[in-house]
Amino acid sequence: MLPVAIDAMGGDHAPGAIVEGARRALAELGVPVVLVGRPEDLEPLRGDLEVVPASQVIGMEADAGSSVRTMKDSSLVRAAEAVRDGRASAMVSAGNTGATMASALLRLGRIKGVARPAIATPIPVPGSSPTVLLDAGANAECQPQWLVQFAQMGAVFSRERYGIAEPRVGLLSIGEEPTKGNPLVKDAHGLLAAAGALDRAGARFVGNVEGRDIMTPDIDVVVTDGFTGNVALKTLEGGLRTLVAAVLEGLSTTDVADAALTALLPLYGTLDPDQTGGAMLLGVDGVCIISHGSSSATAVVNATRVAGEMVEAGVVDRLRSAVASA
Amino acid sequence: MLPVAIDAMGGDHAPGAIVEGARRALAELGVPVVLVGRPEDLEPLRGDLEVVPASQVIGMEADAGSSVRTMKDSSLVRAAEAVRDGRASAMVSAGNTGATMASALLRLGRIKGVARPAIATPIPVPGSSPTVLLDAGANAECQPQWLVQFAQMGAVFSRERYGIAEPRVGLLSIGEEPTKGNPLVKDAHGLLAAAGALDRAGARFVGNVEGRDIMTPDIDVVVTDGFTGNVALKTLEGGLRTLVAAVLEGLSTTDVADAALTALLPLYGTLDPDQTGGAMLLGVDGVCIISHGSSSATAVVNATRVAGEMVEAGVVDRLRSAVASA
Repeated sequence: MLPVAIDAMGGDHAPGAIVEGARRALAELGVPVVLVGRPEDLEPLRGDLEVVPASQVIGMEADAGSSVRTMKDSSLVRAAEAVRDGRASAMVSAGNTGATMASALLRLGRIKGVARPAIATPIPVPGSSPTVLLDAGANAECQPQWLVQFAQMGAVFSRERYGIAEPRVGLLSIGEEPTKGNPLVKDAHGLLAAAGALDRAGARFVGNVEGRDIMTPDIDVVVTDGFTGNVALKTLEGGLRTLVAAVLEGLSTTDVADAALTALLPLYGTLDPDQTGGAMLLGVDGVCIISHGSSSATAVVNATRVAGEMVEAGVVDRLRSAVASA
Repeated sequence: MLPVAIDAMGGDHAPGAIVEGARRALAELGVPVVLVGRPEDLEPLRGDLEVVPASQVIGMEADAGSSVRTMKDSSLVRAAEAVRDGRASAMVSAGNTGATMASALLRLGRIKGVARPAIATPIPVPGSSPTVLLDAGANAECQPQWLVQFAQMGAVFSRERYGIAEPRVGLLSIGEEPTKGNPLVKDAHGLLAAAGALDRAGARFVGNVEGRDIMTPDIDVVVTDGFTGNVALKTLEGGLRTLVAAVLEGLSTTDVADAALTALLPLYGTLDPDQTGGAMLLGVDGVCIISHGSSSATAVVNATRVAGEMVEAGVVDRLRSAVASA
């Protein structure tokens, strides 16, 4: 396998944690990696790893579109080019999400037939496989037919990533009835319910689902526009963070805190974003894994592992087949 | 104070839990109440409480619009009429939310100048006042200027309900920058940021907020359209329910479960929907409190308490002032 190109400059803890994660991915998983970034910053850290030089760094808060257009020697743009040019099998970044999308879109291009790429984010479900939520933020405004493609692509991702043979796909709305929701959802419902819509993706449309269904074992893929998906994702993150903090606070005053926290460690592991392996940008013509901004080395290891798995699974070709017109 | 009209037939545990809650509200809080519903069902339960007779019951899953139009002798419609006709000071229902809204809208009418009523739902925040989220589901599609009114009304509710002197109002989006979001949010941002937009409401617009901010002490009112708001609310409910269940499961296998759960009881109380006192439909010309469908007697007590407080605070007049054009 060609190496996974890792944006060594992206993320709150770059380059230190990123390079450490890259080195561990090679050592622990045997996934070949190449670092992309400023040689002078990476030289003291890289060990045996190769570096694809890139002199610029797109900041975490920088405007995505203009940054990618003007910073052609940025680590993100160079990482995407490495994939495009056949020097890397996939790209991984914990940097600016918008700029990661823009770099991938501009340099890798879209899979033929895909109207818009979407971010597929795994939502952990205790005791079960994660639910794949998409679009988690790539497209604030969507057309109904894009949501059908998100469903097709999300189903492929659910199968290749989590081994779900026939993913159950739900459309996020505010009631189960097909008549509930906004115009986008009502139109998308009709398209998704049409015979054959998800046949090539090997998935089953189960109708509208509600926010409360996302974090349950009852659904595999939840489809929505990027505005709603991003709000749902961040609302969930914030709520879980608040609740976890409140549980820890409540237990801290007791003399059973240690035992209780030990018992809750597996749950903590399930919810730890460093363990999910990152989100995937589905629909670009290459594997692009987006890790969260505060990624630790462990998060980078897991994101690199997923990148390698998606390459081995040939997920881009499977996406191509799933969205191909009949 | 005129009695609070309680829809005795609405809710998963109606009429038993509802009537019990109504009796307790009178006995424990001294809030006068009147039951609305089928006399034959209520006679064995009502004790000293008066009954406004209504022969029909709108089911929890019934279509809201057609039910309210055709079932003129339903408990919901009669409860709204009791408020309209000056026989009750407020209405409380744990029944069909859509039908509650429709009954209130048709029988009470809107406050002059209000384009659309909105559901204001308190989101518990451990260690702080709840955040008021609106619209939590009344209007799946919104115009930008409606969101300005939601902001004005939500601020009044935050002040009267939780004593927040100058509520901080945020617009729910997918980034803090005014340029982030969908067209509705971008347009609403401009209107909310305009000088004087929230002056009459005595509130302060703090800009865009994200989903992760909702359940924090950093914001008092979060404004959004009813589709996004309902998705956020239910996503949060589902996520918290899943996490609480997983925490209980994790602790159950330990010998410190009892002590740990005792320590977490206050947190459980904070999150218990029976304790929030329900949501309020803001913008109709009367006090209408919506309790959740699975309301217990305690939920009804709290919803009735809030109804009484909102009547005493003259919240409808305060809403009228807040939304009045300059």
